[in-house]
Amino acid sequence: MSKGNLLSVRHDVRVLDATLRDGGLCNDFFFTDEFVKNLYKANIKAGVDYMEFGYKASKEIFPTDKFGKWKFCDDDDIRAIVGENDSPMKIAVMADVGRCDYKNDFRPKNESPVDLVRVATYVNALPTAVDMIEHFNKLGYETAINIMAISKEKTEDLKAALEVFGESPVDTIYIVDSYGAYYPEQIRRTSQMYLEYAEKYGKNVGVHAHDNQSLAFANTIDALQEGVSYLDATAMGMGRGAGNCRSELLIGFLKNPKYKPEPILDHIENYMIRLKDEGVQWGFDIPYIITGQRNSHPRTAIAFQKAHRKDYRNFRYELYDLE
Amino acid sequence: MSKGNLLSVRHDVRVLDATLRDGGLCNDFFFTDEFVKNLYKANIKAGVDYMEFGYKASKEIFPTDKFGKWKFCDDDDIRAIVGENDSPMKIAVMADVGRCDYKNDFRPKNESPVDLVRVATYVNALPTAVDMIEHFNKLGYETAINIMAISKEKTEDLKAALEVFGESPVDTIYIVDSYGAYYPEQIRRTSQMYLEYAEKYGKNVGVHAHDNQSLAFANTIDALQEGVSYLDATAMGMGRGAGNCRSELLIGFLKNPKYKPEPILDHIENYMIRLKDEGVQWGFDIPYIITGQRNSHPRTAIAFQKAHRKDYRNFRYELYDLE
Repeated sequence: MSKGNLLSVRHDVRVLDATLRDGGLCNDFFFTDEFVKNLYKANIKAGVDYMEFGYKASKEIFPTDKFGKWKFCDDDDIRAIVGENDSPMKIAVMADVGRCDYKNDFRPKNESPVDLVRVATYVNALPTAVDMIEHFNKLGYETAINIMAISKEKTEDLKAALEVFGESPVDTIYIVDSYGAYYPEQIRRTSQMYLEYAEKYGKNVGVHAHDNQSLAFANTIDALQEGVSYLDATAMGMGRGAGNCRSELLIGFLKNPKYKPEPILDHIENYMIRLKDEGVQWGFDIPYIITGQRNSHPRTAIAFQKAHRKDYRNFRYELYDLE
Repeated sequence: MSKGNLLSVRHDVRVLDATLRDGGLCNDFFFTDEFVKNLYKANIKAGVDYMEFGYKASKEIFPTDKFGKWKFCDDDDIRAIVGENDSPMKIAVMADVGRCDYKNDFRPKNESPVDLVRVATYVNALPTAVDMIEHFNKLGYETAINIMAISKEKTEDLKAALEVFGESPVDTIYIVDSYGAYYPEQIRRTSQMYLEYAEKYGKNVGVHAHDNQSLAFANTIDALQEGVSYLDATAMGMGRGAGNCRSELLIGFLKNPKYKPEPILDHIENYMIRLKDEGVQWGFDIPYIITGQRNSHPRTAIAFQKAHRKDYRNFRYELYDLE
């Protein structure tokens, strides 16, 4: 059921840059304005279709002095970067179930620079997620649902969720491999399952991969080949723990000539490497392999990295005991 | 034509550790005896099936004071590590077409600790490679042929080569993605082609992947799923340029309980990290993406890394000009 081969230009493909959003989890969203402006310009030149600026987190729950502004994504802060966003690239934000005040913190679409609101949920919070989708849809936004941690969910529960989201007004349903646990065989099978529901209900399917087992890019392009069309990536793979599919890999791979990797390479040279040099931690490393292989949340591996530990065997044993 | 799924134990699988051989290209084969002894023991405990000790390079061509002993792999040096090799793990060495004195430097198998000789060749040196295979076969060795740089070869030439090696006494034919240029779709297709000839002639098929595009592990397990059974890996991916499929990923993935990742993790903790700290360079990084995407030899990317350059856009342009 392949939807193209290596030489195909798939006009349904949309690349979403999630550097600020998933990457912000590594530095509490403290990006400089210069960084954000440069990334915005680089993404436009690279042909990126959506740029996600961060979370719309509730200021009641998260203290504003502990996080940079992209944890909250005020419309005015986005405007300060994008102006009228005179570009084909759309602006996205993420709203986490239970962590945002969605009834109050979103203005109608026609008053906002935001185009797409992505709702992140676990399967068990589905009713709230649907309420959020309906709310954002009524405000005029394009919407997506990111169902997280699906490698821990039973297939029948996931199918029930896909049915519910299929009947909702959501535009795009994302496969999210939160734990970087999926192998290509599994991502292909999962893509087929999502696409079956998506085709029934007229939705797009997206993929958001993590690099715990060095499979984020492979899983993303395998999902693409199955027919998934919304592809998440981040510059230099910046994202929580092992990070994400790298924009420089994905954009260099895609065959549509609108995608150009050079602006992303420039952004890496001029900005991303500096973040690493300043001590911001992310990216594939041994402990993430271990949590990925165990299909576990990466938080234990992140703590292991922060402690500069190298006793991998012990870590592996600890993980068994924790389960 | 899948030969198993994620829960299968495939009894035809053989893992070959190429850390000393491909990794030796990063440090001119100057491994300490302690390193080599520890790796040998770790591989046995991890369930590794073959350990490749290095090259059988000609001392007429390569000065022995410029390289460590694993460039030459004298039988006595191997014996000093393995004794009578009282283990199920077999010992391998590599013989490069044009770089070894194969008529003089190999004793008969029953006088040597070596079990498997892998011949590395380009398609155009095929007649010599076949002569070497026949010679090693007569000496009593198990043999493999590693046809390199196949991403640059025409399919009809490759098929002609597979026919010739099929008719030779070689035991195993390797898919070698020298430039890390293959995407999973291509590795699956290539695996099918190799397996077609292998099944006709009763040969095994192996895979040796490079990590230029962060696909070494993905390509290895995709080849495995197609039916490829000899799988190359190296501790921490150590190998020229972007390096190889990581043993810790592969061995953690395989379902046969004989494979245990902990001894590899110990070797990484105690030995591999030290090599990195001492300045030995290898592993996935941006310039290798660029040569991988261009299907180019990684030598330009290695030079870029050695010069500590970060001007990726320029490098990309230089590569276009070079072609």
